[in-house]
Formats: sequence, C-alpha cells, structure tokens
Amino acid sequence: MPYVTVKMLEGRTEEQKKALVDKVTAAVSETVDAPKEKIVVFIEEMSKNHYAVGGKRLSDEV
Amino acid sequence: MPYVTVKMLEGRTEEQKKALVDKVTAAVSETVDAPKEKIVVFIEEMSKNHYAVGGKRLSDEV
Amino acid sequence: MPYVTVKMLEGRTEEQKKALVDKVTAAVSETVDAPKEKIVVFIEEMSKNHYAVGGKRLSDEV
Amino acid sequence: MPYVTVKMLEGRTEEQKKALVDKVTAAVSETVDAPKEKIVVFIEEMSKNHYAVGGKRLSDEV
Amino acid sequence: MPYVTVKMLEGRTEEQKKALVDKVTAAVSETVDAPKEKIVVFIEEMSKNHYAVGGKRLSDEV
Amino acid sequence: MPYVTVKMLEGRTEEQKKALVDKVTAAVSETVDAPKEKIVVFIEEMSKNHYAVGGKRLSDEV
Repeated sequence: MPYVTVKMLEGRTEEQKKALVDKVTAAVSETVDAPKEKIVVFIEEMSKNHYAVGGKRLSDEV
Repeated sequence: MPYVTVKMLEGRTEEQKKALVDKVTAAVSETVDAPKEKIVVFIEEMSKNHYAVGGKRLSDEV
Repeated sequence: MPYVTVKMLEGRTEEQKKALVDKVTAAVSETVDAPKEKIVVFIEEMSKNHYAVGGKRLSDEV
Repeated sequence: MPYVTVKMLEGRTEEQKKALVDKVTAAVSETVDAPKEKIVVFIEEMSKNHYAVGGKRLSDEV
Repeated sequence: MPYVTVKMLEGRTEEQKKALVDKVTAAVSETVDAPKEKIVVFIEEMSKNHYAVGGKRLSDEV
Repeated sequence: MPYVTVKMLEGRTEEQKKALVDKVTAAVSETVDAPKEKIVVFIEEMSKNHYAVGGKRLSDEV
C-alpha cells in the first residue's frame, strides 16, 4: 500500500518501464510517507484500437 | 473527462469497436453535458477462460 | 456483459445519471450486438481533490 | 452482482483457474448472501515486467 | 498477490464483510497456491443510483 | 495519457495529496516521455474495513 496503476499506450521499452516504476515509487513514498517496500505498481498497456478521445480511436486517426 | 471503460468478450470487429466508441461518446456527451473532445473511452477485452458467471467460466460451458 | 464504467466528477443530477445509463446502454447494445438486459453500467464519481491533470488537482486551480 | 476481479501473475493452469472461480464464487455467495448465479468473476493476468513491489519489477529481480 | 476486488451494493454488515475477506482469501490461497499472507482483498461498495442493468438503475426500479 | 490511479488508505492531508499528484506526474513524464499536461492522476481512498491482507481487514486488527 499504496497501489499504483499506470495505464498507457503500448510501445515503451523495458528500460522506460523499469525507470517508471522506480521513480513513481519514490514519488509516492516521499509524498505520502509510505515505506517504499510496501508500494506496488501495476503497468497496464493499451493498444491504439482500444483507446479513443472525442469518439475517435487513435488507430482511426490519419 | 468523463472516462468510460467498456469491458467485453474478445471477438468484436474493428468496425464494431469504431462504432462503439463513437456512439458511446455521443451518449455520454449528450446526457451529462460534457464536450465530446474531453471524453475518453477505453476498451478492455476478456477471453472466455477469464470470465465466469455462477462459478463457471464461459470456456467450461458445453 | 458488456460491463461499462463511467468515471466522472461528482455533481450530476439524478436525472442526468438516469439518462446517462439509458443512452449508454442503448449505444453499446446497438453497436456490439449485445442484448440490452445483459449490459451493466457502473457510475463512479470523483471529487475535485482526487483528480489531477498536468500535475495539478482541480481543487487547486484558481 | 457481486463482481469479483482476481488480478494475479500469469502462469496458472486452466485447472487452477477453473477451481479458482468455482471456490471464490462459493465463498462470496456464502458470506454475503448472494445467489451464485448472480456472481461474476473476472481474472486479470499480469506479466512480471508489469508488476513492481518496492520500485523493482519482478522481471528485474535476480 | 493475488489482488482481489469485490464490488457489491452497499448495505452488508461488518460481520459479513469480515467473513467475506476471510473466506475469499482462503479460496484463492487454496486454488492458485498462493500464501494467504500475500493475498490482498479490496471491497468496493456501490449505491443503487450508480448501478444499472439493462439501462435502468436499481434506484429507478419500482 | 498516461492515466495513473493511486489507491491508498484514507487519512492523508490535502497537502500530501497535492504533492503526490505533482511528484507522480513529474516521475511519469520524465520516464516515459509524455508531456506533463497530458498526464492524469486519480486518487482513490479506501477505508480500513474495506482492505484486507492475509484474510484480515485492517479494521479487525488489534
């Protein structure tokens, strides 16, 4: 605890994801006074055909 | 904002998903008075072996 | 099935929410060929101090 | 209703998942007095590179 | 891990919720071979005006 | 995009939440190369009677 979910488009590299969970965990630990080892991060990836803004999927944009 | 998530079994066509996000966005915009360009839709697909009703997965039904 | 979650800021009236679930259900039913009686809609409300864009909560904006 | 989501690392067998939804449904039905046929279970699987505890992904552990 | 979320209508007693997390944890532990102390359960409650089946909220049913 | 959800026990101050969304947004922006103004953070709070580890709710611990 806390439990952090980061939902983003697929395509980030393993290095980016590794850095992401490291830095986000530090940011949470520092600001809400939670021990780092208790913080959990989940990454969820979306594909462009499953994500829409304004009624249009990213995969349908020209 | 709003953020809409539609969770359904996999297998819909791209045309169906395209229409889905379009119509759902219009329905939300019209009823809660939010500008269409602010509305986000996520599609999440499930497989039949990860979805159960009454304790039985769809993949286990005869 | 499908299961639809609409996450939005608190403050909509009951009439708006009633219309929201009605129209969203119709939009889903029509586009992905699911019977209306199988479609579930959840509304989740957020308060302005629990929602941030660009690192700033809505409650902190002037 | 209720709707139960079980999020876990990928790798369980179909037999394990089948037993999981069966037993969890029974546990929910028995304790909150809901008819079994109304209980829905979703399984969500994570990969080791999308799950971190203490700022470190499982896939990065030696 | 696993992380279990149980979403249900508000109104259950504390005794029911206590039994729910106990029995669900046992069911998960037994079926997917996870140690009980690693299993997390979240309860999420919905109100009747935020839950709809077939386009109609529970709070709107006669 | 990305969309970040931080789920934690209730009780943090407004100052802590304000700092949380600020620092988490910066951490995400820096590591996955997303513009800060596109990053959304949701805070979700749990009460102690709705959160259990090892089959026991926090509210039931002595």
